[in-house]
Amino acid sequence: MAIAEISSELDLAASCRAMAARARAASGELAVTSTAVKNAWLTRSAKLLRENHAAILVANALDLAAALGFGLTAAAIDRLKLSPARIEAIAAALDEIARLPDPIGEVIEGSRRPNGLEIHKVRVPLGVVFFIYESRPNVTADAAAICVKSGNAVILRGGKEAAHSSRAIVEQLQAAAVECGLPAGAVQIVATADRRAVPEFLHLPEFIDVAIPRGGSGLIRTVAAEARMPVIKHFDGNCHVYIDRAADLESAERITINSKCQRMGVCNAAESLVVHAAVAAEFLPRIGAALARHGVEIRGDDRTRRLLPSAKPATEVDYATEFLGPVISCVVVETLAAAIEHINRFSSKHTEAIVTADLAAAHEFAARIDSAAVMINASTRFNDGGEFGLGAEIGISTDKFHARGPCGLKELTTYKYVVYGAGQIRE
Amino acid sequence: MAIAEISSELDLAASCRAMAARARAASGELAVTSTAVKNAWLTRSAKLLRENHAAILVANALDLAAALGFGLTAAAIDRLKLSPARIEAIAAALDEIARLPDPIGEVIEGSRRPNGLEIHKVRVPLGVVFFIYESRPNVTADAAAICVKSGNAVILRGGKEAAHSSRAIVEQLQAAAVECGLPAGAVQIVATADRRAVPEFLHLPEFIDVAIPRGGSGLIRTVAAEARMPVIKHFDGNCHVYIDRAADLESAERITINSKCQRMGVCNAAESLVVHAAVAAEFLPRIGAALARHGVEIRGDDRTRRLLPSAKPATEVDYATEFLGPVISCVVVETLAAAIEHINRFSSKHTEAIVTADLAAAHEFAARIDSAAVMINASTRFNDGGEFGLGAEIGISTDKFHARGPCGLKELTTYKYVVYGAGQIRE
Repeated sequence: MAIAEISSELDLAASCRAMAARARAASGELAVTSTAVKNAWLTRSAKLLRENHAAILVANALDLAAALGFGLTAAAIDRLKLSPARIEAIAAALDEIARLPDPIGEVIEGSRRPNGLEIHKVRVPLGVVFFIYESRPNVTADAAAICVKSGNAVILRGGKEAAHSSRAIVEQLQAAAVECGLPAGAVQIVATADRRAVPEFLHLPEFIDVAIPRGGSGLIRTVAAEARMPVIKHFDGNCHVYIDRAADLESAERITINSKCQRMGVCNAAESLVVHAAVAAEFLPRIGAALARHGVEIRGDDRTRRLLPSAKPATEVDYATEFLGPVISCVVVETLAAAIEHINRFSSKHTEAIVTADLAAAHEFAARIDSAAVMINASTRFNDGGEFGLGAEIGISTDKFHARGPCGLKELTTYKYVVYGAGQIRE
Repeated sequence: MAIAEISSELDLAASCRAMAARARAASGELAVTSTAVKNAWLTRSAKLLRENHAAILVANALDLAAALGFGLTAAAIDRLKLSPARIEAIAAALDEIARLPDPIGEVIEGSRRPNGLEIHKVRVPLGVVFFIYESRPNVTADAAAICVKSGNAVILRGGKEAAHSSRAIVEQLQAAAVECGLPAGAVQIVATADRRAVPEFLHLPEFIDVAIPRGGSGLIRTVAAEARMPVIKHFDGNCHVYIDRAADLESAERITINSKCQRMGVCNAAESLVVHAAVAAEFLPRIGAALARHGVEIRGDDRTRRLLPSAKPATEVDYATEFLGPVISCVVVETLAAAIEHINRFSSKHTEAIVTADLAAAHEFAARIDSAAVMINASTRFNDGGEFGLGAEIGISTDKFHARGPCGLKELTTYKYVVYGAGQIRE
């Protein structure tokens, strides 16, 4: 289970193929690896990360030394930087994943047919995951842990900015794998900085069952376009908060401010406010002042601007934009139906919230909004694997196919029918 | 909800787009259409098909008149031919789908979080299905019924050989839709024979959520390559029967003959026999004689041919081939592990059977075989939505992603998180 050394250009395709074949072979073993062995690997990995934190910090220092050369911002450098406390947090996350229930082997459904056949629909791993992600080194350990706990082999392709840190972490995970009897090839990391390695892997559907890109939308679009296997996409969150005519305006203000301002650069932050005309005259000046206190600019339609003269004019592009910063778009609507239509048109189908005391309005909104999560009287910021109780997540899917919303252990599985007979044949 | 009339080349893209947009609009309504309305449409459609069978037979006569010109075989013409009895069977299938439970609205999982948020994971439709299929007109009604019962709008693209019959059937389904208040655009059929219509639809992921091709592997490969949305693929069934050292040979013979010979041209028919060396000397002459009585040619490895001189030599290509006819490949293996390795290498991951009285062998086979269905002491022919109790199927997926094996109503759904709060914000 050595880290693949991909040195010459000629070797690239062969090296990627060999690595993918090792992952495929490992996945066959991982599918039948016991929960006890997988958990032993997780806790042993956590222990080795703690014991060897000095070596990891040395590797991290190399990444930090190169960070300015890569043009990283101060915030990005902070996310890249490890410390004993951050390594402890990474280790603790592995211990936490060890405590989660093993999804593999669950009998999802079962029945006995009239001819006596017993049909078991059994949860099994997807197989091999190719995970492509950007900078933060904690993601390396998290992703490996989630994939292996759900019985999958994983090929990790991290950002070059964290290359040394990620390799140092994977070395500990691999050492633990050898000790615990996890199959070679369960966790591998692509060592080359050659960007052409990514398309090489994406063209190997015979070895890789799913590609998961996590990062900017450019990365995700590139992976989706190149991949010859299914892709779990974690696209933008252009999330809306709708203030219904029956909203409690105190609650509406708190939910709007929390959705928009609690953390602005994340996918489940609100980017657009939709306000029912019946409460707009009272709510808009109030939320305008509150957003102004948080330094957030409002871009609204004509009706918004009549009630809130400080708002700037909004374009169609503004309504479709995930700002990820101190800007929010705003529109005033006549009806709940118009709110739903506006949201279904502009949303990226991630998370939408309604604030209302009207049960029928809440029900209608929940039924008709075509997004991964609908929040009734709660902040959009709750769409998160941890907040939903999934325990850990590898991303938040904006697709409707296979998995939607936070992707934890179960979302990395599929099923198989195991049919028990006693010699039955079909008439 | 008129059938799109696509007349000029210039109109093709615009017509397809308009049709897809109508389907998208319909899907928004279908997502909130009650079970009662969907079932009323199904039973009304069945009634109209029965009442108007004469008109359908007239349309079918036009297809039959053109059949020889399309080069259809006698068997294909028989599958195309409708009769009052066959129309009754189509209608009865719709009544049957009306009696199936509605999957939409099921709360798949739910929990209350420490902060009081109630998380409901609710089953919802995928949205819009683009279904591309070959000749048989009964598939038109079946597919429309399954899609609408699961809350999806469907765009049907049938084979040109059944064009008149399929249009006549869809006219009845659309008339029933108007009567029952089903949204316009719930069921549409592509009327043009222009082959370029298919790629037009496959390039509209903004309107179509999933493409399902059903037909030859050429069709499926083309659709998979062109589609910009997910595809549920129904590929070959290169299915295996493995006769373990602990097999009851009487049962082994019956299961092999049923798997191979009960119907040779279908995807869940066996195409390859794998025999443990410990029973090969007794079993091979016996099964050789039985297969010969069914006119089936055996192509085997050297060990097979030593024990069964009438067998022809098998190549690697034979082991990878779905014969769909009177040929079966055969290999003798030393161990269960070798059998599993052979099957996982050559199988198309559809259905594999083991015949054994050994519990440990059955367990090992079920755990390590990476196929949609594993049959323990039962014929491969049982991998079928009806036999599994799903009630109706739109295909059998050979993918591992989203849906695997028979695809019924549930496999045309996804889920949405609906979160009930009381003003919660994230700290």
